Amino acid sequence: MALYADSLQNLIDLLNRLPGIGPKSAERLAFYLVKIRDDDRQQLIKALASVKDGIKQCAFCGQWNSNSPCKICKDEKRDHAMLCVVAETQDLVAVERTNEFHGVYHVLGGTLNPITGITAEDLNIKSLVAKLQKTKPQIKEVIFALNPDVEGETTILYLTKTLRPLNVKLSRLARGLPLGADLEYADEVTLGDALKGRKTL
Amino acid sequence: MALYADSLQNLIDLLNRLPGIGPKSAERLAFYLVKIRDDDRQQLIKALASVKDGIKQCAFCGQWNSNSPCKICKDEKRDHAMLCVVAETQDLVAVERTNEFHGVYHVLGGTLNPITGITAEDLNIKSLVAKLQKTKPQIKEVIFALNPDVEGETTILYLTKTLRPLNVKLSRLARGLPLGADLEYADEVTLGDALKGRKTL
Repeated sequence: MALYADSLQNLIDLLNRLPGIGPKSAERLAFYLVKIRDDDRQQLIKALASVKDGIKQCAFCGQWNSNSPCKICKDEKRDHAMLCVVAETQDLVAVERTNEFHGVYHVLGGTLNPITGITAEDLNIKSLVAKLQKTKPQIKEVIFALNPDVEGETTILYLTKTLRPLNVKLSRLARGLPLGADLEYADEVTLGDALKGRKTL
Repeated sequence: MALYADSLQNLIDLLNRLPGIGPKSAERLAFYLVKIRDDDRQQLIKALASVKDGIKQCAFCGQWNSNSPCKICKDEKRDHAMLCVVAETQDLVAVERTNEFHGVYHVLGGTLNPITGITAEDLNIKSLVAKLQKTKPQIKEVIFALNPDVEGETTILYLTKTLRPLNVKLSRLARGLPLGADLEYADEVTLGDALKGRKTL
């Protein structure tokens, strides 16, 4: 016997497909969405329907934003000789929020992943190489700000091999203990890297 | 500077209002919803728009399902003398999934909560009392299947006081250790209840 009405079960199934939403969260969300005021549901529907309307992919950095070129690529006050390579637009936003980086970005659109079949062809790597080969403005440093997981590390390895001949400084984010971490629970790779990268006081 | 395009930020804000979706999950979901195929997004929009169409509240038990009376209330094979009181339709579904209960349900529509201002008037308590006062079919036992938290316990206390004069057996779910629990980490109330409710082997 089906336990939920068809329309509700359908919504639960669709919500369950979203990233990070398990079957229980999907049920809770679906019930919430049944019970909210029709206006509020309509507002969400409208936002969903129009989300792509106001969004363009920047032709320079590849991020999703309202303009192409985006505000960052257009901004002459930023240091166009520093290029930060990120996997997705969210990662660009995360780096921007630190207020520590004043260069420009290059969004790969993902990371290499043989399991899901994402190869170098699927990522914006050709345009990255083209950017570095341009003489003006000369890019001085490329910072890889990728997740320190298998896919991110693989991508860094691949990019290092590809970009090495272009004679540009390549760097990656420091690995170490995050703020508030507990030495006792840190994995040995992270702790080892934190030791190797220790700062003189 | 706004970091996201307006339409994207709007969707992120709306998703962030959903239960269990924090700001980071809202960003991840919004980006996922930008990138999926238009068909898939349209499917979700349709499901949202039509979720209430196929749903009725059962006039007998108060659950949200496709019919009123619902399949459970109509089912003559079920024991209509056993009444299980739950807070929400999801809880009814959780009890149904155990396959251990063959009676009928009464959905309160929430639990007493002075903080959010939910009083006895807001819950389906009058109809519960009316059900118990009917002579036919005579209800023999009322099982309170409410969350063992402050709101649930308060509601059980209130209902016990309200229903006691009606001379019907009242019961509540057993408290004890869940499957796979660790004695060492169990709180003292739960462990105490598990001791008091121990089963002879």
